[in-house]
Amino acid sequence: MKGTMSDVKLEECREHIRSQLDNVVDFWLKYSHDTVDGGFFTCLGRDGSVYDKLKYVWLQGRQVWMYCRLYRTMDRFHKPEILEAAKAGGEFLRKFARVSRASGEWKCAFCLTSDGKAVKVQRTLFSECFYIMAMDELSRVTGDKDMQLEAEQMMEQLIHWVRVDSSGLGRPQLPGDVPTNSMAVPMMLLCLVQQLTEGQGQDVVQKYKELEQWCVQQILHHVQRAGTAILENVSVEGTELPGCSGRLQNPGHALEAGWFLLQYSAERGDEKIQETAISKFMELPYQCGWDKKHGGLFYFLDVDGHCPTQLEWSMKLWWPHCEALIAFLMAYSQTKKPELLERFFEVYDYTFTHFPDAQSGEWFGYLTQEGKVALDFIGGPFKGKIIRLVNLPRSPSA
Amino acid sequence: MKGTMSDVKLEECREHIRSQLDNVVDFWLKYSHDTVDGGFFTCLGRDGSVYDKLKYVWLQGRQVWMYCRLYRTMDRFHKPEILEAAKAGGEFLRKFARVSRASGEWKCAFCLTSDGKAVKVQRTLFSECFYIMAMDELSRVTGDKDMQLEAEQMMEQLIHWVRVDSSGLGRPQLPGDVPTNSMAVPMMLLCLVQQLTEGQGQDVVQKYKELEQWCVQQILHHVQRAGTAILENVSVEGTELPGCSGRLQNPGHALEAGWFLLQYSAERGDEKIQETAISKFMELPYQCGWDKKHGGLFYFLDVDGHCPTQLEWSMKLWWPHCEALIAFLMAYSQTKKPELLERFFEVYDYTFTHFPDAQSGEWFGYLTQEGKVALDFIGGPFKGKIIRLVNLPRSPSA
Repeated sequence: MKGTMSDVKLEECREHIRSQLDNVVDFWLKYSHDTVDGGFFTCLGRDGSVYDKLKYVWLQGRQVWMYCRLYRTMDRFHKPEILEAAKAGGEFLRKFARVSRASGEWKCAFCLTSDGKAVKVQRTLFSECFYIMAMDELSRVTGDKDMQLEAEQMMEQLIHWVRVDSSGLGRPQLPGDVPTNSMAVPMMLLCLVQQLTEGQGQDVVQKYKELEQWCVQQILHHVQRAGTAILENVSVEGTELPGCSGRLQNPGHALEAGWFLLQYSAERGDEKIQETAISKFMELPYQCGWDKKHGGLFYFLDVDGHCPTQLEWSMKLWWPHCEALIAFLMAYSQTKKPELLERFFEVYDYTFTHFPDAQSGEWFGYLTQEGKVALDFIGGPFKGKIIRLVNLPRSPSA
Repeated sequence: MKGTMSDVKLEECREHIRSQLDNVVDFWLKYSHDTVDGGFFTCLGRDGSVYDKLKYVWLQGRQVWMYCRLYRTMDRFHKPEILEAAKAGGEFLRKFARVSRASGEWKCAFCLTSDGKAVKVQRTLFSECFYIMAMDELSRVTGDKDMQLEAEQMMEQLIHWVRVDSSGLGRPQLPGDVPTNSMAVPMMLLCLVQQLTEGQGQDVVQKYKELEQWCVQQILHHVQRAGTAILENVSVEGTELPGCSGRLQNPGHALEAGWFLLQYSAERGDEKIQETAISKFMELPYQCGWDKKHGGLFYFLDVDGHCPTQLEWSMKLWWPHCEALIAFLMAYSQTKKPELLERFFEVYDYTFTHFPDAQSGEWFGYLTQEGKVALDFIGGPFKGKIIRLVNLPRSPSA
């Protein structure tokens, strides 16, 4: 494709994504706000109706983050109603998300009743991650220093669980349960460091510098099999684990880690990390994860070609496609290599012909391997807004 | 269909099921035994190869149970190698399945390394259920009274968790987590009572009599919406719960509960329970759960027609079809109503044209909604032998 042709197509993509983002924000502004108890409904049908009133903390945190990020960084969303919605969501989160622990440890619920009572606590740290994202971003638009401090304190709790003692997460220590480096953990921590340090002074940057480098090293340990595969779970020493867990591949996670690494490399001008991010964390998951027959990215794969044991392994989910769009566009934006733009277009074409729902203006989240809508709601326990569109590089064109 | 025609077809079914059962037992005898560390490999590919060495306790327990039940009740399986395999599996279970707890409570792991180290403990009671099934059935073929006592003691632990105090299961008490009557719990307890009391004297029968009636009542509470639906989760008072959890339907579970109720009614000559079992726990789940377009039973449904949030809701799993086969054949066998035999034939035709794998002689476990094989292994973390064929009524013909 010639330079000018791809420039034109890229501009078309930009316009289309812009209008999609407008539709998405409209949908959530219109249907998700709980004006009685505060917070956001997240289980929404195509017509905006609430089919379950449970409030999932991941999605509460992400929605606060999205509203604030839009308000702070895009002029057309710098509107009082978006700021107010973000503040109301943040208030609900602060009031209800944290569950009290006898140990004094900070832990967030996974899911709350509509009036804020804890229903379920996961033995992982992801609710806390999205809590931090929300608090930090909200403190940036409100200037609330207490809130920023709270984000940093929760971050200390996470670091303690990950690097010192995980027993506070509530999993019993079992002799056969070997410590594992799961991609999601260093990836999310790196994302949080990038969130907490963005635009901050050297004191904050320095505070997280060692952690950031540790995260990058932990992510790089997932490059396995002499550099030919990204594996989702590796040992803490950085070697391959036995069995299904050790052979598991999650192309969406690898691509997501890829653009986190790309952001890291860009801040430092680190060309080696940039090259690894693109050749290992983008090219490899694309090669193994793209469905040559039906298009789209598989959810899970086994590096040896066994069938994964996850029932949903062959489904096409919205979020790996968002991660792929960001990853390839960011990689192209940094390198101007035309093959990366080609990848972006390929993912773009599949994504925008399969996921958007004309009726709601939002996206479906879950397709069958063949690309048919498998679950027809807009929001669910894990599917919220397609906030990742916010992360697309702003001026990708050459 | 005329009486004689259906008799002929039923005899064909019997012969076919008989040969399928032979193939299945051969497969597991040949490929699943771990002659080094004991116990059974359960993650097996179509060629019998072990793709993961983890040992899942549900499946260890079921395999011991299956071998013993076959050995004890079917002449052609009354062979020393089957008895020895059962005993070896039982020894592995007794040695490794129970995890030690400071509280002194009995708890089983969900999953073990191949040499028996606990990898994961679920905060539910199902590993313990299958442990009891195995110990009781094994004690019947070995005459080991200690083992029978162990089954009964574990049963006491289960009863304590279900009816007195569930905190030993390890879930934190949360204000929004309302106590729920989940179909699986009274259903499994009823199954265990039937296992423990089968052929025993009045002392054992009396010991579990009140529990058995309690289980039946708890199961009947799942008949909701003025008798028009079976719901998977209800309140402990027997009323409908809000949201997705309250509207969830699991046709396979309902059918399974149905034939447990049918066994209960047959022992007592209780025609009212028999009628309820058939009209509510078999007819209703069949009506709502059978896919009119592609055939087969859905895994999950929402009683109000919303899309379930479980990603696998539309998949066709082997086990609900086994439960349906047993349920309708048992119902026909008790009532001789031709429409129940028609249901059996319908489920039979779908099941035996979709699940069996000619290569391995065993069955696939997971199909797409359209009936295509979605996961091509034979054994997995939850899919073991199609042991339910053992439960088919022995002489179903009129």
